[in-house]
Parts: sequence; structure tokens; C-alpha cells
Amino acid sequence: MARNAGGSSLMRQEIGQQPAALRATIEALLPRRAEVSALAAGTRAVLFIGRGTSDNAAVYGSYLIQAHAGRLTALAAPSIATTYRARVDLDGVLAVALSQSGRTEEIVETLEWASACGARTLAITNGGESSPLALAASVALCTQAGVERAVPATKTFTTQLAALAVLALALGAPLDPGELRAVPDAVESLLAGPADVAGLERVVGALAKVRGVVVSGRGMAYAAALELAIKLKEACYLHAMGLSYADLLHGPIAVVDAETPAIVVAADSGPTLAGTVDLARRVTEAGARAFGIGGGAALAAVCTTTLAGPALPEWLAPIGLIVPGQLLTEALARRLGINPDSPRGLSKVTQTD
Amino acid sequence: MARNAGGSSLMRQEIGQQPAALRATIEALLPRRAEVSALAAGTRAVLFIGRGTSDNAAVYGSYLIQAHAGRLTALAAPSIATTYRARVDLDGVLAVALSQSGRTEEIVETLEWASACGARTLAITNGGESSPLALAASVALCTQAGVERAVPATKTFTTQLAALAVLALALGAPLDPGELRAVPDAVESLLAGPADVAGLERVVGALAKVRGVVVSGRGMAYAAALELAIKLKEACYLHAMGLSYADLLHGPIAVVDAETPAIVVAADSGPTLAGTVDLARRVTEAGARAFGIGGGAALAAVCTTTLAGPALPEWLAPIGLIVPGQLLTEALARRLGINPDSPRGLSKVTQTD
Repeated sequence: MARNAGGSSLMRQEIGQQPAALRATIEALLPRRAEVSALAAGTRAVLFIGRGTSDNAAVYGSYLIQAHAGRLTALAAPSIATTYRARVDLDGVLAVALSQSGRTEEIVETLEWASACGARTLAITNGGESSPLALAASVALCTQAGVERAVPATKTFTTQLAALAVLALALGAPLDPGELRAVPDAVESLLAGPADVAGLERVVGALAKVRGVVVSGRGMAYAAALELAIKLKEACYLHAMGLSYADLLHGPIAVVDAETPAIVVAADSGPTLAGTVDLARRVTEAGARAFGIGGGAALAAVCTTTLAGPALPEWLAPIGLIVPGQLLTEALARRLGINPDSPRGLSKVTQTD
Repeated sequence: MARNAGGSSLMRQEIGQQPAALRATIEALLPRRAEVSALAAGTRAVLFIGRGTSDNAAVYGSYLIQAHAGRLTALAAPSIATTYRARVDLDGVLAVALSQSGRTEEIVETLEWASACGARTLAITNGGESSPLALAASVALCTQAGVERAVPATKTFTTQLAALAVLALALGAPLDPGELRAVPDAVESLLAGPADVAGLERVVGALAKVRGVVVSGRGMAYAAALELAIKLKEACYLHAMGLSYADLLHGPIAVVDAETPAIVVAADSGPTLAGTVDLARRVTEAGARAFGIGGGAALAAVCTTTLAGPALPEWLAPIGLIVPGQLLTEALARRLGINPDSPRGLSKVTQTD
């Protein structure tokens, strides 16, 4: 897709701004690893606090930190804090709250609750140092995505993932920061590559004719699958069911049929690729269509159509894997006559309570 | 619904066996609280390990233990153990593995991994003391559901929830064991009550005409919503999207429309009821239908049709709230010409790897 092609939607423009947003974020946050390490010293578990897209980012952080930094992670249920008003022992826990705006009251309140329960507190937000969430945390990692105007989050999501990669490094993950620095270029190449225009068009055409789709992925890539599912629900009103690889095998694979295709997301390498390829093969053998995102030649060989993923190592792949999904969401919304910038029922900062 | 009415499906019979299964399970497990307390002594967090329906049970355990026993809980990603083969610091953690059969290799392997990482280990299984999962754990709480022959789990799920209620009591939750002992009678009353035949028929009729549905609930009740969503996917091939209350508000409420109703699950009382009523009102105000399960008069007042829930306190309500959902799934499958006992693509014990 040529760099300046695409529709005139804000969402499409913001998708294109991701290389610059990632570059600025990584440059700003990588030097802060020592500060985060100091905050986390003596903690043994990480509690993520987020909703919606930010919760999907937390899923990435959760896999990354367990797989590579050896700490237990948990995803908070904010209602425990805000509705049950329970007291939970969080001594030895690093609480990490994610909110694009930094203004979602429920998230700020849950981080304050975590602090009162004994946790150390870190914020990841695009709302700046003066946002309520940043002010509520001991340390704030501010992403540098700039103003995001389209309702569906794009660059604020991928920069959250980059911040989480910095967190993993700060927690001692033996991974190469140089690989993180290479992410903006990889996303730029993905956006610039012309190869997938035809593939994208085919997948858009297929999804425009169905009511539902299953989106699946395993390990790190699961976060990108969940995020694509939320995008397709909120901007295209598709019945998009985000299911983990194993959960799909453990039952609901029945829901995949001739009218309900699967989208399968995978990094080009890593320990979860083989299983993901098997899953896609099982879907097509059952008579349904499987659309791949990423997964290299192995996934492409068993899928109906595949959109190329980023040239990134598995631990960073989700940052690029969501990009074809964003392009797909934007193009499908327009095909369906929906303005991707302002789908029904949504506003940019959501308050739960 | 008269106690012996309903179709001749195994699933319908097993739904009806739940009062006896719960009675036997509670009788067997309540006396073992001290043993579980001793196992958990000195631990500060609980890591649940499960897949599919067992993972939905873990969601109940997670809310229950955080809200009432003051401990951090996490849901394990088995691939961290079985695919990434990561080493995570689980000192001070009680690992609780759930598997109906006790024979799902991935779950057994993940519990063994947790033990090697320093966790204490508890199994909750219907597979008996000699099942691989029970043998792998320091303590096994064996549910007494008897043989379950229909593929969609019913009595093995509700007895898992009962075992988790025993766990919460063993971890010091200041709740009344007498209320747990009253659960089988409450489920029996729900199954015996004739009031909801017409309501069930209306909801079945409505769902038979749609492709997708959103299932939502908040707090404890969220587990019942997730479980209903998996049932509707696996036995009725519906595009059933299980979404938490807040996640639905934070975006994908756009997916609810005239052709995509919502099912909203709530206890008759408790701190999450008011928010759930607001959610259902928002759905109907948006022009979509909201079908309630439980939630008493408050939820019924804002829903298109409501199925009565159990007369149980909020902490135990999910054990009864899934029952109207099971009846709905069984009746809808038959209406759609599907044999609920053996939906496509499923077998009773699933191996992921």
C-alpha cells in the first residue's frame, strides 16, 4: 500500500502516523528503564489495569512479562475496586494502569485503590504528565502518539505496546533493545509495501458479506487478535469473536462455518507458530475460510488469503501485526458505509461509572 | 418447568441432575476446608489454570476470592508453561487447576509447571482421586457430579463453582457456609418453577431468528455470562460474544442492534445490579432487545423478556444463574435442529497440544 494512499479518514491518517509515533515513544521511554527498574525493585508480580483496547495491550504485556521477565501477571477487574470496594493484599505487586486519555475515572480510581492496597504504581498513557492517571502514579510512561481524533484507537494502542516492551526490558527480560528500536522502520515498511493491496481487497470483500468472524491467535499474538476483534465490533459492527487458540479448539470451533470465517494472527517465527498453522488448517479442513495475518509462508500455505505481517521478532510482532488489521477495519467500515472515525454508540473517553 | 419435563436429550437430563450433584459435592467438600486452609497457609495470591468452561469457572473464583478473601488472583495462560516453557516466580502462590475430566494434558502439565515454579497446588476435578490432575496436586477437591455424557458441560460446571465457593471459605472469606448448603434447594426450585416456560419459549423464538448475541454481566455474574456465551457458540453455533459490562460500554456496544440482541445476567441483589440495569436500559434505548437472566424486578423492568434467576445471595448466584442459560441453550439447539448432546467439532476431553 503506497504510503500516502488510502481514504481520507482520520483513522487511515492515524494508521499512517504510527511509525513516527512509535519512534518518538521509544526514544522517550527507553532511557527511562532504570527509573522503572527502581520502582519495581522488590516486587514479584504485575497487576495490569485497563479497559477495552488498553486491556488488549495489557494482554500483550502479560504474555511478554511472564514469558521473558519471569513474573506472575494478572489483569485487574476494576469492579473489585470501584464496585465491591474490596481490600486485596497487593504488597509486592507493581500495578500498571493503561489509559489512552489518562482520564478514565474508573482506571484512575483502580490505580489509587491498588496503591492503597500496597502496590507500587506505574501509568502508561498518551494523556501527558498532567493527566489524572499520570498524576496518580509514582512513575508515568507517557506515549508520544500525539492527538488521536478517530474514535477507533490505532497509534495510541501500538505506542502502548511499545511502552510495555520497555517495561519488560526494565523488569529484566533478556531481550535486545535494538530490536525494539527497529520497530518503527518495520511498521513503515509494512505500510509502504504494495504487495498486500490485492489481498486486503479480497479479505474486505469476503468480510463485507458475512455477519460474524472468529479472530484467534496464540501467545503474544493473541493480544493483536483480541484488538482486531474489538475493532471489527466497534467500527464494522461485525460479530467478531476474539478467542484464544486453545479456547477455540476446546469448544467453540463449532461456530466457524461456511458463513463464519476465522482470522488467524501469528508472528513469522516463535514457539506458537506451529500450533497456529494447525488451527488454520483445521478451520479450512472444516470447510470454512481462514484469513491469515502474519505467520510467514507456513501460515500462508494453509490459509485462504494471508496479509503479510511485520519483519519483527516474535516478542515485538504484535506491534506490527495489528497494522494490517487496522487497515482491514478501516477499509471494511468504508465498504459497509460506516464512517470509521465515529462509529455509533462511542465517544473517545469512556466513563464506566 | 416441571421437574421431569423437557426433551429427552442427555443435556436436559443432566441439567436436572444438578441439585443432587451440588448436594453431594457440597457435602463432600465443605468438611475439607481446614485441609485447604493448611495448604494455602502463607500464600498470598491464587493462580487459576483452566480452559473453556473451566476457565469461566475460574472467572467466578477470581471475583469471589478478590472481593471476599482479599487475595490477588490471576488466570494462567497455559502456553506460558507448555509452549514458551518460561520460568515464573510462583513462590507464595496457590495454583488451582480446574478440569472436568482431570485428563486434559495441557492443564496437568501447567499445574506441574506451577509446582516446579514454587506454587502450592490444588486440583478441582470431576475425574476422581485417581485422575492425572488429582494425582498431580497436593490436594484434590473432587466434585461429585457423576458421569456427564452430553458434550456441553452443565453439572460439572456448577459443581466446579460450588468447589470454588468452598475454596473461598477456606481462604477466610467471611461468608456463611449455610448459604452454600442452601444452593441445591434453590437450583431445584428454579428447575421446578413453572413460571418461566413462556419466557423461555419467547427467548428461544427470538434467538432462533438471529445470528449473533452479546452476553454480558458484571462482577460474579460475569462468569455466568461468559459460560452462557460459550454454550451458545458450541451447541447453537450462534455468534455469541461474551463481554464484560464495562468492556461493552467502552466500545463494542455498537455491535448491539435490532438484529443483535443482548442477554444480560445479574444476581437479584448486590453492588453490581444497578450498573447492569443501566446497561440493559441503554441497550433497549438503542433500539435493541435485552433479555434478562436474574436481576429481580429491577432488571425485569428494563428488559424485553426476563428469565427468573435463583433465590441466592450474590456470592452464590452464578451457580443458579447459569441454569436458565443451560435450559435456553438446550431448547435453542433443538429448535435449530442441532443435537445438543453432540454438537459438531467437539469431543468430551480436549487436548490442546
